[in-house]
Amino acid sequence: MSVFTKIITGELPSYKVAENDSFIAFLDINPNAKGHTLVVPKKEENKIFDLPKNEYQELMSFSYRVAKALEKSVSCKRIGMSVVGLEVPHVHVHLIPINRMADMQFIEKVKLSNDEFVELARSISSNFD
Amino acid sequence: MSVFTKIITGELPSYKVAENDSFIAFLDINPNAKGHTLVVPKKEENKIFDLPKNEYQELMSFSYRVAKALEKSVSCKRIGMSVVGLEVPHVHVHLIPINRMADMQFIEKVKLSNDEFVELARSISSNFD
Repeated sequence: MSVFTKIITGELPSYKVAENDSFIAFLDINPNAKGHTLVVPKKEENKIFDLPKNEYQELMSFSYRVAKALEKSVSCKRIGMSVVGLEVPHVHVHLIPINRMADMQFIEKVKLSNDEFVELARSISSNFD
Repeated sequence: MSVFTKIITGELPSYKVAENDSFIAFLDINPNAKGHTLVVPKKEENKIFDLPKNEYQELMSFSYRVAKALEKSVSCKRIGMSVVGLEVPHVHVHLIPINRMADMQFIEKVKLSNDEFVELARSISSNFD
């Protein structure tokens, strides 16, 4: 069972920003930048392009809505998107409010307090529709 | 007019791998890894999440098909996807055959000869459907 499935089942906590029957979005707890969010299908699949086309399209649609909420909640030049998956074998779309290339490189990280994560998740969630 | 629009109009050459009325895919000439491909909407828009939802969904659908062709043409652990856009203000989806995190970081680059680019584009194009 992946660490993301443990978040989906509630075995592990998360700062959730959006959820429906098929997908969940929560804050990355080791973010590249403030607002870095992961969008994850509840069905555990390793590689994004192994998802059936319709499920992939639904994931991308849900990610679009989360990105729009992020844009309203976090000051940035734009929302970057990245799918890598070399570490956790459960599809996840990174949505990252970026101001510079380094925000996309998974090298430099930012630290946020629990209160900051809670407030950020609340703000993004309130802008999700 | 963006450098990508110049490729679309034919003013600049490219190693094209796929094209339809709305989108074009061609090899990145300064690739992170062999097979690094850009998928670009012909309509010039700066930010991906400023695309109308249906155009974004069509771009993602076209990118899925290109990724499937890449998987068949290039040996790799998986296909990574990245959308940044801080340098060229014309939406482009990076599809990158990756084996390690560095292949996603836009720091290390690989050199290919003209013959290698031509053969690679031919192979990916032949696997596109």
